[in-house]
Amino acid sequence: MTSKLTILVSNDDGIQAAGIRTLVTWLSKYHNVIVVAPDRERSAMGHALTLHKPLRVDEVPFETSSEFPVQAAYSVTGTPSDCIKLALNAILDQRPDVVISGINHGPNLGNDVLYSGTVSAALEGAIHGLPSVAISLFNGSTKGADFNPSAQFLCEYLPTILAAKLPTRTVLNLNTPTASYEDIKGVRLCKLGTRTYSDDYDRRLDPRGNVYYWLAGEVVLGNEEIKDTDSWAVQHNYVSATPIHFDLTHEAVLNNPTVHKALTFSR
Amino acid sequence: MTSKLTILVSNDDGIQAAGIRTLVTWLSKYHNVIVVAPDRERSAMGHALTLHKPLRVDEVPFETSSEFPVQAAYSVTGTPSDCIKLALNAILDQRPDVVISGINHGPNLGNDVLYSGTVSAALEGAIHGLPSVAISLFNGSTKGADFNPSAQFLCEYLPTILAAKLPTRTVLNLNTPTASYEDIKGVRLCKLGTRTYSDDYDRRLDPRGNVYYWLAGEVVLGNEEIKDTDSWAVQHNYVSATPIHFDLTHEAVLNNPTVHKALTFSR
Repeated sequence: MTSKLTILVSNDDGIQAAGIRTLVTWLSKYHNVIVVAPDRERSAMGHALTLHKPLRVDEVPFETSSEFPVQAAYSVTGTPSDCIKLALNAILDQRPDVVISGINHGPNLGNDVLYSGTVSAALEGAIHGLPSVAISLFNGSTKGADFNPSAQFLCEYLPTILAAKLPTRTVLNLNTPTASYEDIKGVRLCKLGTRTYSDDYDRRLDPRGNVYYWLAGEVVLGNEEIKDTDSWAVQHNYVSATPIHFDLTHEAVLNNPTVHKALTFSR
Repeated sequence: MTSKLTILVSNDDGIQAAGIRTLVTWLSKYHNVIVVAPDRERSAMGHALTLHKPLRVDEVPFETSSEFPVQAAYSVTGTPSDCIKLALNAILDQRPDVVISGINHGPNLGNDVLYSGTVSAALEGAIHGLPSVAISLFNGSTKGADFNPSAQFLCEYLPTILAAKLPTRTVLNLNTPTASYEDIKGVRLCKLGTRTYSDDYDRRLDPRGNVYYWLAGEVVLGNEEIKDTDSWAVQHNYVSATPIHFDLTHEAVLNNPTVHKALTFSR
């Protein structure tokens, strides 16, 4: 185990969620943990920031084991990105060593990361130049899902992540399998797979006859059969580890001379 | 001018905003335009989706020139991503030829794109396999900003974009300069520059003595001096055109053998 770290933890399921509570209980055994998390669920928030409303911050009790309390816990009336930005610029009086976001209730695979509040909190950490990790449990949205194997795994794997010294502005996006701690087979470095949704909308009429829609898409499983994707790894009892960044420039297209010629002009 | 297209238009400033109204007025002269846009401002929403509330859709009047009306306009109680998803899956009965998002009031340069609702609407179009364009006016957040040069430019440039046949799942992110139509010098293909914010939070007390925070960051101008960035182009009276995609995998890190060795293990 590495020396004691100062760790900033957030999530998108809200500060009361089982995933973050299990994670923090484990991390607190070894490290100084400060929790700054949304007051309620903020899933599928993407990288949203709150511009038009003030943010409230409350220091709240956060139960772990009595032997290893958290350093402090704050509940914020904002998005996951707000939480990290606010923590680093207004709440903490020391810069943390690492930002960890999760454990998310359900996977963040493939295109999910674009919509994921969990990943956005980690990206915000990376924007601020800190080593940042997002962690999601594949079956974490199932009732009574056990986050302990994922939390224990992360405690042991964290020194490895930090020793790897990823380039700044890189997030390591982890998805953990539905397995006991002993049955986790290891870690695979993966690209993001494709994972799409059927995007159905459920059209209904309210009691006054007005139309409204519910987003009701189901996952259309993507390339789980392709071995180098995150989807494959997590469904074969490996932890998927995908380095992600926030520069959306499509380099291949940018550097394609035909595209360059077609789109550029001066007058 | 190319043949008549069916164009789906959205934005993040809301359906009443000057930017979308000017854009649609110009596009309608040449094409069939369907507007599906948020009922009010949804800036800095990132790629957020509305999961926990139903979405309302209202067909609304949308004034252009009387000679060239829009095909239809819908106001949605959701985010820009919701608008495009809902349009393509529940509202439109034909698949559009292209998705255009904007004209945004203010630039979407560098890291802005991560937070931008305007860009997220275009990304949602790209996720659905459609040619997609985001367009933002550099000084569009200034009162009385004139969106006509940008709109006219896009009408003329659109056939060029479509003829370039960018790979599917690519968005072309355009920023237009603060210039008259005649003074726009041309188009430069650019990478996303760095553009960061000071991230100050304004800490205040409410009338009951409770603390609240306003996000009050200011732009810290990035690498405008670097000629191949979007920031440079738009500040030198060029339109910046950046191909972006939504695969956040950091390929360079993923394919680095040292990183691979450090992070991977089996047991």
